[in-house]
Amino acid sequence: MTRPPLAQTAVIGVDLGGTKTNAALIDRDGRVLRRATAATPGQRGPEEIVRTVGHLVEEVGADAHPLALGVGSAGVIDQVRGEVVSATSVLRDWAGTPIRRVLEQWTGLPVAVDNDVHAHALGEIWRGRGREAHSMLLVAVGTGVGASLVLDGQVWHGARHVAGHLGHIASPYADGRECVCGGWGHLESVAAGPAICAEVARRTGEPVARLQDVVRAAAGGSGVETDALRQGALALGVAVGGVVNLLDPQLVVITGGVAAAGPSWWSAMDQALRDELLPATADVAVLDSELGADAALLGAARLAFERIVDA
Amino acid sequence: MTRPPLAQTAVIGVDLGGTKTNAALIDRDGRVLRRATAATPGQRGPEEIVRTVGHLVEEVGADAHPLALGVGSAGVIDQVRGEVVSATSVLRDWAGTPIRRVLEQWTGLPVAVDNDVHAHALGEIWRGRGREAHSMLLVAVGTGVGASLVLDGQVWHGARHVAGHLGHIASPYADGRECVCGGWGHLESVAAGPAICAEVARRTGEPVARLQDVVRAAAGGSGVETDALRQGALALGVAVGGVVNLLDPQLVVITGGVAAAGPSWWSAMDQALRDELLPATADVAVLDSELGADAALLGAARLAFERIVDA
Repeated sequence: MTRPPLAQTAVIGVDLGGTKTNAALIDRDGRVLRRATAATPGQRGPEEIVRTVGHLVEEVGADAHPLALGVGSAGVIDQVRGEVVSATSVLRDWAGTPIRRVLEQWTGLPVAVDNDVHAHALGEIWRGRGREAHSMLLVAVGTGVGASLVLDGQVWHGARHVAGHLGHIASPYADGRECVCGGWGHLESVAAGPAICAEVARRTGEPVARLQDVVRAAAGGSGVETDALRQGALALGVAVGGVVNLLDPQLVVITGGVAAAGPSWWSAMDQALRDELLPATADVAVLDSELGADAALLGAARLAFERIVDA
Repeated sequence: MTRPPLAQTAVIGVDLGGTKTNAALIDRDGRVLRRATAATPGQRGPEEIVRTVGHLVEEVGADAHPLALGVGSAGVIDQVRGEVVSATSVLRDWAGTPIRRVLEQWTGLPVAVDNDVHAHALGEIWRGRGREAHSMLLVAVGTGVGASLVLDGQVWHGARHVAGHLGHIASPYADGRECVCGGWGHLESVAAGPAICAEVARRTGEPVARLQDVVRAAAGGSGVETDALRQGALALGVAVGGVVNLLDPQLVVITGGVAAAGPSWWSAMDQALRDELLPATADVAVLDSELGADAALLGAARLAFERIVDA
């Protein structure tokens, strides 16, 4: 097989989330040339998850001679060994999976892997909000509250691959609330989507299935839903403002399903964040994601270029 | 003048604090060969402060042919330009001082400068608790609550030289308290030494001059002082535990006058910190400073070796 001409070199990026897996063929300029998606068979175990990724890679890579595969996966990822360190029960038995090795066997491509929030941040730094930035704090608020810290263009992974767990810092708004981690009073227990739904359910006595229902009721003027969303927005803004004082990133990007709840959520969050800032950090830009659902896909492709193609 | 033999090469480190300025001649192994100290003339303006440093440098450097001068200074420091970005009123008019340039003129030595908490962290990484560590969060709790984050052996300074302002994140223990920064509910307003003294004064109706008086009264069994110290310890521990979850440093070092308040303070802080940790960060070591008051001096010397002698 002859090597494709340079202008046509592309890699495959995969965003492996708890419910959906997206794959795309992406060129060196960050253009998506072809894409495919599938439900993540999270409850059917690692073999089925890997098989799903494998099929998507075949689909978007067919006849395109991709050079490498980059994967952003849910869970704590050891990006050096290419393994899953831990994961929530949404991906059953995912912890311990040697993603890189099994996907290299499946696809025949060299593989780079990282956590999906870190991949999202790499996407924004490469082709999104962070194009001009040397440092960026990306916050993803949805089912959980995660973050990624990009310093001098590199993701900080931490000493145990755990860096980014913003949801597990104390919040003055979460007093007395138990967190999914077993701790108490953490940000995630008031600001994440399920926490907002649970708060509405607690106050109304009615179960709440989806954040979208809360957003709709709040838009219709319902006080309980408005309060719960606002509490989450204030808690997130206060926490992120404090972290800006501590870490002094050039730029903050806030993304995820809850961050898309609408202008009321955003303006409450933004005001609370700004009220926390020191004079010296007061000019920090706080922006939404430019790439949206494609950010982690692009970041995964960036991983493949940086760690494999250009390494 | 002939160059001194390599085994005798040494630099001068200066720790320029709000009340005291320490200087030492330090060799390549981090040994203090000679030292001197003076009161910092903080209220007499930058020229007097610089003159004090100049005299100390002459004193410890006499006949020793030091190769360079490293300075760790209170205030926000632009370590690239060698200038003070901002400082508290303890050092009058210190903001704007081009420390590097004026000290180079005064001493005839090449000069490197950084913030004193960052210098402290560099000292611990070089010759103290962090000798084996790739990453470290150093927390200094005294007149304020500051921090320094060392990642891959390098201090993270932030986009505006502001990184490390741990005191200005929200604390569940500081609800309703105004912070020296003008914000509300920040960690510093409950955990710093002056905050602890102010809380005791508020509850007893008697002025409190020094943290040492609070510590002594608490040791004697007085409930108000015990409570105020404990509140500060819990607030600090909860905040640092959350930051460990977010940043995943290999090691935490906690230092400063309040951290030296005794075993009750330390054990309350340590327990609160550990209660915050995720399972994945639960093995983080939390230690006191190994170098104590010499840490910033050694870190300042390290600055001089890294940025000048070995650059």
